[in-house]
Amino acid sequence: MRYVLEHFAVAVCAVTGVLAARGKSIDLFGVVVLALVTALGGGTIRDLCLGVSPVFWIADPNYMLTAVAAALATFAIARFRELPQTVLLIADAFGLALFTMIGVEKAFAAGVADTIALFLGVVTGVGGGVIRDVLCGEIPLVFRRQIHIYATAAFCGAGLFLVLRHYFPNAPFNRIATVIVILLLRLAGIRWKLGLPLFAPQEVASEKRPPPDSLSP
Amino acid sequence: MRYVLEHFAVAVCAVTGVLAARGKSIDLFGVVVLALVTALGGGTIRDLCLGVSPVFWIADPNYMLTAVAAALATFAIARFRELPQTVLLIADAFGLALFTMIGVEKAFAAGVADTIALFLGVVTGVGGGVIRDVLCGEIPLVFRRQIHIYATAAFCGAGLFLVLRHYFPNAPFNRIATVIVILLLRLAGIRWKLGLPLFAPQEVASEKRPPPDSLSP
Amino acid sequence: MRYVLEHFAVAVCAVTGVLAARGKSIDLFGVVVLALVTALGGGTIRDLCLGVSPVFWIADPNYMLTAVAAALATFAIARFRELPQTVLLIADAFGLALFTMIGVEKAFAAGVADTIALFLGVVTGVGGGVIRDVLCGEIPLVFRRQIHIYATAAFCGAGLFLVLRHYFPNAPFNRIATVIVILLLRLAGIRWKLGLPLFAPQEVASEKRPPPDSLSP
Repeated sequence: MRYVLEHFAVAVCAVTGVLAARGKSIDLFGVVVLALVTALGGGTIRDLCLGVSPVFWIADPNYMLTAVAAALATFAIARFRELPQTVLLIADAFGLALFTMIGVEKAFAAGVADTIALFLGVVTGVGGGVIRDVLCGEIPLVFRRQIHIYATAAFCGAGLFLVLRHYFPNAPFNRIATVIVILLLRLAGIRWKLGLPLFAPQEVASEKRPPPDSLSP
Repeated sequence: MRYVLEHFAVAVCAVTGVLAARGKSIDLFGVVVLALVTALGGGTIRDLCLGVSPVFWIADPNYMLTAVAAALATFAIARFRELPQTVLLIADAFGLALFTMIGVEKAFAAGVADTIALFLGVVTGVGGGVIRDVLCGEIPLVFRRQIHIYATAAFCGAGLFLVLRHYFPNAPFNRIATVIVILLLRLAGIRWKLGLPLFAPQEVASEKRPPPDSLSP
Repeated sequence: MRYVLEHFAVAVCAVTGVLAARGKSIDLFGVVVLALVTALGGGTIRDLCLGVSPVFWIADPNYMLTAVAAALATFAIARFRELPQTVLLIADAFGLALFTMIGVEKAFAAGVADTIALFLGVVTGVGGGVIRDVLCGEIPLVFRRQIHIYATAAFCGAGLFLVLRHYFPNAPFNRIATVIVILLLRLAGIRWKLGLPLFAPQEVASEKRPPPDSLSP
């Protein structure tokens, strides 16, 4: 069951990677690499920082095959018809929720402190998308105000997992509750986002990259 | 003493991460992540390359707490008043100096060659800022001609540490001299930078990036 | 012999890193760092994911010295005269071919699955150039349609190595055939690329970013 869900999350993230390449002059190979990076990136950063070696997609090559298959299928379908946005957003929210939960759990399994597990959960959930956006030459979406419920949802869910784990160690509903909370927060965020452009037009305008700060790093 | 200084350097780098987000539409969560990346990024790359596992901020969670606290405090203060530039630049120069020295020292502790220790010292000093700038969609500041004394200062200080260590192994003033040299070179660089725009206006002009694609991934 | 070829590949990739900095306001230090990142980046990602510790350029500092020497020499020469494009493109194609072959081989030596070795071979071949382009604020060249034969050549060569290795384990001509196939595909791609603008002007137009250097990584 868990194995199936993990592969579903990998596939969903790979699909979002393919869709990020739309409108850019990125070829089929680039699309597959973007899909792989989006699907495997967050977990790779987590494993590297934790010192898990080799990283999860080398230990089990099936993750990569799932991501490539999902990417190729999306690439083929996207040439013929528009994909329904709603289904994709919900699937992506599910990927975020599941990846965050898995990230927190694997961090705890490695015996790290609570705050570190929280952080690594969020990193696992959003990391792939951040690398994807950087490779596409964009400011990572999770940093933008318009969809700030994205990473915040992962953060809240990971925090809930922490609390639940303290009071009910090893209870199976810990994971289910975490995934559901992230999912609901994210879906609420999507609805909220739709109304945002009306309230903050100047923010959208200010998103044209300003000249670099004079402050040195 | 050293522990206090390290945490001071982490806090200072976190503050520069928050300030890099000014003028961009980055939300509170993004600001905290930028602060963490700036404060912990250089040391993370160093530890990963050296094979130190887990990385330093997982081995001691206090670094992350320091960075988050500094980021939140800066975020709150920056809403009410301008922060004095001079104090910040000096504090940032101190962070660069301390991180570089710690980087060289940890590399030597891992038993690497002199040239590698030199390189890893510079990477520890400037790495966090590079990741921060990439995430903000900028060409990393350390690569720009305007502030080239930044990384060069780290390089010279790390080189001095190398020489001192050869003639006076384990002398405590090695570290102090290294930090002071980087600090002085960097502060001299800040003063020099102020005059540069007059000499190279066409470079500044060519640095304007094209507007980002409107398609969000 | 192999050692000489590896250092030749490192030097060639360092040269392409220096040339990527042309026309940008990047100083000498930034140029050397770009050269190091281009020359060592792909192998570093491979070693980190495989759990090889420390990474190859720490285990043998000569790689870094080779890259720095090549970068400084290129920087000095580029100030006085134009470098011949053809020689560089061929040398760069050789670097891609050799790095990909070494990547596949090292992945197999670590005992990973076939698909993972294929992927890590491509990552070793193109990874350095991707990091270089991200640091320069560009969409990585390997993702662009104009030069898609670049990564595809690495992919095909790595696939050939896989097949040859299955039927003729440990035969020395496996490596030679792999390098030659990648080299030929890439050189064919360069010639094909020259004709592309005539066939796909709207693609070039839709690439609002500054036109890519005609030198591919």
